Amino acid sequence: MTPVAAVRPETRQQLDLLYAPIREELARVEQILKAELRSDHPFVDELVKHGFRLGGKRLRPALLLLAAQACGRVTKDHHVLAAVVEMIHTATLVHDDVLDEAAMRRHLETVNARWDNQASVLLGDFLFTHSFYLASTLETTYACQVIGRATNIVCEGELRQIDSRAKYSLTEAEYLGIIEAKTAELTACSCLLGAHYAGADKQLTAAMGRYGRALGIAFQIVDDLLDLEGDEATTGKSLGTDLEQQKPTLPLIRLLEQVSASEKPSILEILTRSGNHRREALQPWFTQCDALGYARTRAEEFATQARAEIAQLPESAAKMVLEGLTYFVVARQQ
Amino acid sequence: MTPVAAVRPETRQQLDLLYAPIREELARVEQILKAELRSDHPFVDELVKHGFRLGGKRLRPALLLLAAQACGRVTKDHHVLAAVVEMIHTATLVHDDVLDEAAMRRHLETVNARWDNQASVLLGDFLFTHSFYLASTLETTYACQVIGRATNIVCEGELRQIDSRAKYSLTEAEYLGIIEAKTAELTACSCLLGAHYAGADKQLTAAMGRYGRALGIAFQIVDDLLDLEGDEATTGKSLGTDLEQQKPTLPLIRLLEQVSASEKPSILEILTRSGNHRREALQPWFTQCDALGYARTRAEEFATQARAEIAQLPESAAKMVLEGLTYFVVARQQ
Repeated sequence: MTPVAAVRPETRQQLDLLYAPIREELARVEQILKAELRSDHPFVDELVKHGFRLGGKRLRPALLLLAAQACGRVTKDHHVLAAVVEMIHTATLVHDDVLDEAAMRRHLETVNARWDNQASVLLGDFLFTHSFYLASTLETTYACQVIGRATNIVCEGELRQIDSRAKYSLTEAEYLGIIEAKTAELTACSCLLGAHYAGADKQLTAAMGRYGRALGIAFQIVDDLLDLEGDEATTGKSLGTDLEQQKPTLPLIRLLEQVSASEKPSILEILTRSGNHRREALQPWFTQCDALGYARTRAEEFATQARAEIAQLPESAAKMVLEGLTYFVVARQQ
Repeated sequence: MTPVAAVRPETRQQLDLLYAPIREELARVEQILKAELRSDHPFVDELVKHGFRLGGKRLRPALLLLAAQACGRVTKDHHVLAAVVEMIHTATLVHDDVLDEAAMRRHLETVNARWDNQASVLLGDFLFTHSFYLASTLETTYACQVIGRATNIVCEGELRQIDSRAKYSLTEAEYLGIIEAKTAELTACSCLLGAHYAGADKQLTAAMGRYGRALGIAFQIVDDLLDLEGDEATTGKSLGTDLEQQKPTLPLIRLLEQVSASEKPSILEILTRSGNHRREALQPWFTQCDALGYARTRAEEFATQARAEIAQLPESAAKMVLEGLTYFVVARQQ
């Protein structure tokens, strides 16, 4: 078999092609999401359905199903769990949009722009609690435990990120710790659950968890990069928000580490000045020390780590997709 | 035995006396909450500890433990579950304070007043997810299922309440449906779990659930009453917020049902006028048709229903406290 790695998908369309081996499984997950995310109360129903449409790449369900296929066989428990991780992800997105006061996500109005913060907070809670209920319909408490712990770490990561606002002394290690918690914990948990419920042994299950973790870190580094160098039309969301909210991300941390002590005040002045043109004002600095290139290289390193974890898997279409995803998360433009 | 009902506690101090039979059990629950609600990250730790202090009457843990004692025996599973329901309750309080933009709760600054909305949203999420994790440490998925479903109904109830804002045509039945979901579902779930894990049979477990449900409805009717006629110094929270937020509660629904068609516009004018003196302006109207008295009578009826559900229990100190609570929720001034 030719390694699918050669595909190196960059766009959403290519990602859809990459998902081909799990297309039917993903369709089953969509059915579950559709059946679960509804309400007898028209207002609640409309809101929940909007939340459901906000979901994008379905990366976490895909990871869970691919890990299952690569390690064994996809069962109906996997479909339920894939719906669960997507609901949790959507809940965090909806709450992020409150936090970020973002107006657009995936070319759609965010819940708090269309309704208000109150509706967003409660929709997120609705999704969180529904996902936990759904996880509890499985036979044992295993999934509830893994998911309960992972989501708690995600929340802690988000809180640590709040604490890091305007803290321009944040180190790369601290930044990586935060994104590992807020993003990679859930991708790790998705892969781990996929493997475990496919009957993988402890060692392989742990390796799949590490794959998901490294992939999630790479994904988030690139997400933060896109906020600095992406295109709003392509990404479909408001950009430059990290700078607006004084959230130090990897390129900025790198920049501040690289410039001389005499140059630092100019950069800090840009970061704290009022108005919304920080992204433009920082471009020459980013170029000068190739801070964006550095962040991309770090993302590639984590993607490479992820690939190494799955090298032990027997060859399969699912394995190739898992490899392909390590390229996608770095190369994507949206 | 003299029925403890004669105590009819009205104040927090009397409630503490009422809890005497479960004082040690409640202390064990506090230990669990203290041990669980912490973080290695100082900012997260401080925030989580503040959230823990916001908890007030510990009504839901008390109900769970009392139901257990009245039906059988308190086990270590009960202690864990009592901590779980209190965490969930605190999560909803923290998120309510975002929604209400309230500044004070239980004589303490709310999280969003002391930090900001972002911190409140994430602290609530942290508490939700931690409670689910804790529930999943029990042997079976029973508690996760009951709690997952109940919390989802709570969120749906809160969303229905948002939808009812400024909807002054809301009927009493619709109002009762909303408070049953947003408040009584969790008190019902607390009693049901207490009974189930104490080995109660299906019939008794269901009756305990109905006790908790009727008690919760009575509790919320009085909560809404206190928002209209209570004293800020005694309750320790901002009052009049329901009117400010155009949230129709029972006295107002009653008032609008009682007044003549020609009087209605004057009341609707008060409800929609700007400024913060609606509470005062409505007092004469409330007095005219005894709308507050009506709401109190309805609360007493639900409290009586709750007492009827536990009449079948063998006599015990716990049963007497459960009876005493039906008086407390109606008579309380805070």
